[in-house]
Amino acid sequence: MNILVINCGSSSLKFQLIDSETEKVSAKGLCERIAIEGSRLVYTPAGGEKMIFEAPMADHTIAIQMVLDALTNDSYGVVKELSDIDAVGHRIVHGGELFSEATVITDEVIEAIKACSDLAPLHNPANLIGIEACRKLMPTTPMVAVFDTAFHQTMPEEAYLYGIPYRYYEKYKIRRYGFHGTSHNYVSGRAAAMLGKDLADLKVIVCHLGNGASVSAVKNGKCVDTSMGLTPLEGLIMGTRSGDLDPAILEFIAKKENLDMDQLMNILNKESGVLGLSDQFSSDFRDLEEGYLQGKDNCTRTMKAFCYRVAKYVGAYVAAMNGVDAICFTAGLGENSGVIRGMICEYLTYLGFTLDQEKNSMRGKEIDITTPDSKTKILVIPTNEELAIARETAKLV
Amino acid sequence: MNILVINCGSSSLKFQLIDSETEKVSAKGLCERIAIEGSRLVYTPAGGEKMIFEAPMADHTIAIQMVLDALTNDSYGVVKELSDIDAVGHRIVHGGELFSEATVITDEVIEAIKACSDLAPLHNPANLIGIEACRKLMPTTPMVAVFDTAFHQTMPEEAYLYGIPYRYYEKYKIRRYGFHGTSHNYVSGRAAAMLGKDLADLKVIVCHLGNGASVSAVKNGKCVDTSMGLTPLEGLIMGTRSGDLDPAILEFIAKKENLDMDQLMNILNKESGVLGLSDQFSSDFRDLEEGYLQGKDNCTRTMKAFCYRVAKYVGAYVAAMNGVDAICFTAGLGENSGVIRGMICEYLTYLGFTLDQEKNSMRGKEIDITTPDSKTKILVIPTNEELAIARETAKLV
Repeated sequence: MNILVINCGSSSLKFQLIDSETEKVSAKGLCERIAIEGSRLVYTPAGGEKMIFEAPMADHTIAIQMVLDALTNDSYGVVKELSDIDAVGHRIVHGGELFSEATVITDEVIEAIKACSDLAPLHNPANLIGIEACRKLMPTTPMVAVFDTAFHQTMPEEAYLYGIPYRYYEKYKIRRYGFHGTSHNYVSGRAAAMLGKDLADLKVIVCHLGNGASVSAVKNGKCVDTSMGLTPLEGLIMGTRSGDLDPAILEFIAKKENLDMDQLMNILNKESGVLGLSDQFSSDFRDLEEGYLQGKDNCTRTMKAFCYRVAKYVGAYVAAMNGVDAICFTAGLGENSGVIRGMICEYLTYLGFTLDQEKNSMRGKEIDITTPDSKTKILVIPTNEELAIARETAKLV
Repeated sequence: MNILVINCGSSSLKFQLIDSETEKVSAKGLCERIAIEGSRLVYTPAGGEKMIFEAPMADHTIAIQMVLDALTNDSYGVVKELSDIDAVGHRIVHGGELFSEATVITDEVIEAIKACSDLAPLHNPANLIGIEACRKLMPTTPMVAVFDTAFHQTMPEEAYLYGIPYRYYEKYKIRRYGFHGTSHNYVSGRAAAMLGKDLADLKVIVCHLGNGASVSAVKNGKCVDTSMGLTPLEGLIMGTRSGDLDPAILEFIAKKENLDMDQLMNILNKESGVLGLSDQFSSDFRDLEEGYLQGKDNCTRTMKAFCYRVAKYVGAYVAAMNGVDAICFTAGLGENSGVIRGMICEYLTYLGFTLDQEKNSMRGKEIDITTPDSKTKILVIPTNEELAIARETAKLV
């Protein structure tokens, strides 16, 4: 089956066409600046050159039309006609408490996704635009919604409730949801495969470390806790997001700087994290790592604070599961930075492992980076959210 | 030496007179409703009956005068005259970054405490009132300031910095400070004594669990992390304080309920915690424990969420120190609730211990509650902040 995987943002749209039998990508790309001047489609067929089409895209429907045109183009397309695309898998950010797994998209499902928009006001409406555009252009093609929150819906009450008046949970569903679920699910599954064991018998911690970053605890195949919360702001120190804070800091900053709540949220989401901590040096960990290796103070404190926070979450989740078999590193940093993996693992050797420094220096490869006698395994596992979405989609249609 | 230990709040004042040689309390008591109608002094001399004196206290000077009168009274006093009180130790909540240990109070110290008031606007001014009143009444008696934050000043940068713009640390000193330092210091010291080891060789975690609650990691005698932050709002779920939250929850609640920052802070400090989570059932853990044992849903979720959060902090701090030798429980709950200790320890047996259930059922006693073969020790250690303040004071005068 040819599965078109779509990840639709408010002004962008990422796509991959995946053959669900071979699990190979036939083509992939990105529409940028949709409904903004200077919009363009970046398109790469498998084995071919990257192509860039600059053309106005007044809305997402036009953007998707351009994607479909490219995919079916006689010279650089990868399928003959539209009907060769057997299904579409849509990444949806927030499924609230309504969706604990992927689901075939119906009118009811669209309504339910709308009902969760309150919880992800920037993301769900954009995701819905992508669905509507596809429905218009491919009305008979089955579509599946794959939720970023779904994998975490197995968390127990003690992990998802906050210490606030319970009525806020009842009235507004304020609770921990967690994100990156597709990645945590995929990586924990790969961990079991790498260890040659049944996921149902394992305690796995997944560190998804990218510009957005989260940690999850997966016990016997079920997520029992994760570091992102009601929104993706909680948890680790991220590229530009603060992660965990004393809630009273919001009041303190607001009063000192005379800021309202929107301005505060903007600072905590866009000017904080490693960008803020490094004194606006960079939100890119490659820059920070370089500065750290050069002994720059701002990069050193930032790298150390980032890694320390990850180590603390790993420690907390070892307690949450009363033990751990494997700790997995994935996403941009997790897959590629041996320095960061090493700094995190230095805190964790009480778990009974020794890093194989040579293996840890490798990049983007699925590999166990511990010595063979290690009781706890440290695994590097490249994530593949698109493939995971394609698999879920193929399973349902 | 007779040391008068004073803990002064905005409308109350707790005191103990402690003999620093025998470390026995000669008398103790409390002034309530200072500068409010219905003020009274509750006074108990060692071995004597509790006495209550109802009398107007227009300000803290009058309150302290009443305390001194009681302490030197011919019939129920415990010293002959004022000059028999050799020193006064004051509990000060916030020492900012200026005080990493207790210090003899001078004009400069008072100015410095004032300079930290910004960080503890409710507490430091009240503490200062107590100092000024004592200076007026006992101008030649040496006084010592013992700070709730001082013990935590050894935390490394990666533990005390938040993931926010660095300029907020530089300009406003927004960072993690931690509180209950006197207790964490005292209890970690007792842990070493109980284990017959040098604190400098130990990794200790102290769970100070009372209506206010915090956890700290003490490595080789130095605090390396603690759960309270800029203010005592962060960390564990407390009696009425929320502890850790996704910072975006503040925005979410503010918009849904149309609240301003002061109202939000009031809810998070006074209507949240176990009181809020139990749907306003109780902020008293004895009620919650009873309800939990009776199988009430609201008490069950609250007890589980509270204990789970403690266990996660313990796990995080094991990572922070790359191991642990002893976990200590102290303060109201920590000393008295075998149920709560048991629920927390259930998560932690990966650390290599077995609870001795009989020992764990004891209350308020200094005791190792693990079986002798346990690699990690779980200790119950009644805290004694007043004694710790008296010791610090005696050491300095």
